[in-house]
Amino acid sequence: MLSERMKKLTPYVPGEQPQDRKYLKLNTNENPYPPSPKIEALLKDYDIEKLRLYPDPLSENLRERIAEKYRVKKENVFVSNGSDEALSFSFYAFLDSNNGNLLFPEFTYSFYPVYCDFYGIQYQKMPLNTDFSISTEEYLDETESCGIIIPNPNAPTGIAMDPEEIIFLLEKYPRDRVIIIDEAYIDFGGTSVVSLTDEFRNLLVIRTLSKGMSLAGLRLGFTIGSKELTDALFVVKDSFNSYPVDMITQRISEIAISDTEYYKSVTEKIIATRNVFSSELRKLGWNVLPSKANFVFAGKKGISGQEIYLRLKERGILVRYFHIEGIKDFVRITIGKKEEMDRLLEEAAKI
Amino acid sequence: MLSERMKKLTPYVPGEQPQDRKYLKLNTNENPYPPSPKIEALLKDYDIEKLRLYPDPLSENLRERIAEKYRVKKENVFVSNGSDEALSFSFYAFLDSNNGNLLFPEFTYSFYPVYCDFYGIQYQKMPLNTDFSISTEEYLDETESCGIIIPNPNAPTGIAMDPEEIIFLLEKYPRDRVIIIDEAYIDFGGTSVVSLTDEFRNLLVIRTLSKGMSLAGLRLGFTIGSKELTDALFVVKDSFNSYPVDMITQRISEIAISDTEYYKSVTEKIIATRNVFSSELRKLGWNVLPSKANFVFAGKKGISGQEIYLRLKERGILVRYFHIEGIKDFVRITIGKKEEMDRLLEEAAKI
Repeated sequence: MLSERMKKLTPYVPGEQPQDRKYLKLNTNENPYPPSPKIEALLKDYDIEKLRLYPDPLSENLRERIAEKYRVKKENVFVSNGSDEALSFSFYAFLDSNNGNLLFPEFTYSFYPVYCDFYGIQYQKMPLNTDFSISTEEYLDETESCGIIIPNPNAPTGIAMDPEEIIFLLEKYPRDRVIIIDEAYIDFGGTSVVSLTDEFRNLLVIRTLSKGMSLAGLRLGFTIGSKELTDALFVVKDSFNSYPVDMITQRISEIAISDTEYYKSVTEKIIATRNVFSSELRKLGWNVLPSKANFVFAGKKGISGQEIYLRLKERGILVRYFHIEGIKDFVRITIGKKEEMDRLLEEAAKI
Repeated sequence: MLSERMKKLTPYVPGEQPQDRKYLKLNTNENPYPPSPKIEALLKDYDIEKLRLYPDPLSENLRERIAEKYRVKKENVFVSNGSDEALSFSFYAFLDSNNGNLLFPEFTYSFYPVYCDFYGIQYQKMPLNTDFSISTEEYLDETESCGIIIPNPNAPTGIAMDPEEIIFLLEKYPRDRVIIIDEAYIDFGGTSVVSLTDEFRNLLVIRTLSKGMSLAGLRLGFTIGSKELTDALFVVKDSFNSYPVDMITQRISEIAISDTEYYKSVTEKIIATRNVFSSELRKLGWNVLPSKANFVFAGKKGISGQEIYLRLKERGILVRYFHIEGIKDFVRITIGKKEEMDRLLEEAAKI
């Protein structure tokens, strides 16, 4: 009963969401602080009768808010049911294997190869430098590529790119092939390239409200790019699901997008905690990659990531490890509140 | 910059959602009554801090509620971001053109051919009887089909199938090919085939909360089928978007699914209004197809559907017409509240 394309799929495996006991959850890069308190008032007085009507299929108000915040036009903004959906639509819309492989870093968001398999797109993993940073020069040597996708900061390393590196790439790469910069973790210290979307018509920036805006439970992603790229994403959406963003999500997202002040204080706290935590963990003899995200990628000589994961899980703390050659000596640790990281440090000292 | 597959798309066009003035909206089959009043209490006390975490990617509680209500097992239930997403995933998972064409009625939900184009699936439109009913016998004559999808009741006709017709189809059709019954409008008087999913492993029933449960703004669809079909849909989901159903939507849907009593009274009112309205409209000399949905498909001799649409729009009432040979003399009229239909009858009398 299953289609041939279906039989070939190996789905993405999200981080554990255990329901059995209470863990200190530092495994899925969730924000430890609540979302904007202004959301509470919206829900308190929400007129549920509105829900009988379809939502605005174009999310006009929300896209207007996003456009204001990021100083672009509404026609440059597309919104989706989480940034995963925006990624999926982008792969469908812009990537053709007959133009060559899609290029992305060897160690990165493991959903990218899944999207490729989903749509039958060939890809090529580009090696990282020995310090796990990305050098874009090699991407340009691959003349037969149909596009490039790089997260900035990268996951699971947490390492951010110098914007000069991205500009270099944009200037040298063919203008008729797309470069996608996945800025899921940009709010924690990296430099966004949103302002370059006006100049480079083939640059698509993908964002999410899950991390910086503490709304993983809500599912809202968006993209910023040229009108040509944005229009194409709308065509894909309207060939898949006319109304992917529900009415409550549109309103909550409008509020979150506009509450710059609150989120500034939240991300500052997370950045400060990350910096202290990283230096404390290094004092314990751990190798901690320099992170600009809300997580750190860290390991200790002589013990595998899996073993660290198991030892911490026993002690009620969840982190994430990857059973992949090259990064199997690391665990990815989400930055929680100060006291949560102190608890982890206590356990780390015993490893 | 666009992929070849992208260039071939002709997207679905949803019904108008005008923002400019207040219309009596009888064009997108929305429910005129509010959703379950119990939803209000949930939102009033909603702990927004929860939103910082990812939702349950398996929607366990919601699937449990649905399973209870429809007397199936949780393993037979899949949930999605609106039934459009469930349809899209089903087309991906179960339909291969190398096994023949997908068969569906000539006049039906116009998203089906769009999904086919999206995934490169060939299809064949099956003629309706002269009274616009569906006879399944011809579907069986097409030996080279890869699957069948039929809405029951059908849209835009509103005509329901005799369950015997569907059983006949299930018994004769190859068991390794899927039969999808799209029950979007089943709550308004049709007979569901959910109870047959246990016997027929190739039967997938698709449902939505948009119509009968008055939650079009929320986006929740679900499917009921064998474990094999359900498992496949989860693999597709996890290759597209790990978390397509957000946390608030899961909770609201649980409440709606469980409030059987409230929704029974709502659908009874709509059915009663539909029956009175249909007979009044017939008295005015209109041709009204016998509907088991929350809309009727109706026309008047000597005037096109488009003309009726325009005349009513002028008078502040929105209905939907289809510029398609064979049904262009009809408009699809959503059943609203009694007084709304009376207003439409007043205008209809002048046409």
